[in-house]
Amino acid sequence: MRKGESEQVIDVFKNQMDANLVYVDATDRFLGKLVDVAEPEAKRKIIGAEFIRVFEEEARKVGNEVSFLAQGTIYPDILESKDGVKAHHNVGGLPDDLQFELCEPVKLLYKDEVRVVGRELGLPENMVERQPFPGPGLGVRCLGAITRDRLEALREADAIVREEIDQAGLTIWQYFAVVPGFRATGVREGKRAYDWPCIIRCINTVDVMTAEVPGICRVCYDLTPKPVGTVEWE
Amino acid sequence: MRKGESEQVIDVFKNQMDANLVYVDATDRFLGKLVDVAEPEAKRKIIGAEFIRVFEEEARKVGNEVSFLAQGTIYPDILESKDGVKAHHNVGGLPDDLQFELCEPVKLLYKDEVRVVGRELGLPENMVERQPFPGPGLGVRCLGAITRDRLEALREADAIVREEIDQAGLTIWQYFAVVPGFRATGVREGKRAYDWPCIIRCINTVDVMTAEVPGICRVCYDLTPKPVGTVEWE
Repeated sequence: MRKGESEQVIDVFKNQMDANLVYVDATDRFLGKLVDVAEPEAKRKIIGAEFIRVFEEEARKVGNEVSFLAQGTIYPDILESKDGVKAHHNVGGLPDDLQFELCEPVKLLYKDEVRVVGRELGLPENMVERQPFPGPGLGVRCLGAITRDRLEALREADAIVREEIDQAGLTIWQYFAVVPGFRATGVREGKRAYDWPCIIRCINTVDVMTAEVPGICRVCYDLTPKPVGTVEWE
Repeated sequence: MRKGESEQVIDVFKNQMDANLVYVDATDRFLGKLVDVAEPEAKRKIIGAEFIRVFEEEARKVGNEVSFLAQGTIYPDILESKDGVKAHHNVGGLPDDLQFELCEPVKLLYKDEVRVVGRELGLPENMVERQPFPGPGLGVRCLGAITRDRLEALREADAIVREEIDQAGLTIWQYFAVVPGFRATGVREGKRAYDWPCIIRCINTVDVMTAEVPGICRVCYDLTPKPVGTVEWE
């Protein structure tokens, strides 16, 4: 979860909406399953399967009356999983021995349509307009094999990005931070630093650059001053 | 070397300036020494040492009269190597058993001062104003362990970046492309792509963002549209 997000969800469902919410912190379970797993599709499937296992265990504690799993699956999740672009945890990432009947009321809707439904249901505006968040959580923004310290750096960096964009009053459809698993050279207080870069991703507001180089599928712009970066990356 | 750069250097020194130039393509030797070497300082030292070995061999072919090694060492190279920020190939990267006396006429000058000297010597303006290039070459922009295919992708991407910035008529002190050794998820013709990102680095013209997150020393901005990127990085 993002920084402060668990608390926000608990506040809305438990306090504001008086829902019968069970909150579980399963951080250690997920991180334990993901040790040394670097391949993105493997990560997504592990996260999807563990999500269901946690749900099953909690459902058993509630009693035998739990027969449905309600998911916020939306149409692009189904399209992308079907085309093999990526395994969304709630579609391609589901285990074969799923013990619940799926309930996916918005699975034929796109994000903007889901927001209309949310408003009709009386959800607070800040939840309806909340930044979209990947099903597998920050795990897929902590690129490659996840480590606890890098995940924590990502959580802090992501909070700074969201705060800065909020304060600047910018209207951006989706924005977030990514921390890859390699390090780059920098300088801190005159000494060599060798730390992770942070990649900021903003969608729908940038000029389009065409990258037609074989083997390359992303173009980023390095905003780092010197220091804390050096001119070269290593 | 960058795309077309060897040809340009040969043209200036051999054809325009009538210098006694010996040109050596040592690509395979460098790549052979760098297989599986991912640590930046190790890479810089290997490249620096191999550079000297190539120079020694060529000097022997010329005859016994070669006793000097002239280098374009500038003051920041010395400062950064001394402080341990990074081993510049021409300073911290030199082998202990160097068989030449060093001749470094501009080693107490900064880049802008070197350009004044270049103009006084009658070098063509496009060489004086040429983009600075790291001593260890594109190798330190092909992050981590270098592979031939990724180096080629970097060379093409770097050429596109330089061409686009030239055509846009922008005045930027230094700009280049970097290709890290990890892959990110994308879409090409509706199918999953899993390729390298390309990072564009421009210096002296960007707003400064402060990155104060422990462990993070770079901030990049992802310019990729969807497709060819997906929203998330994996």
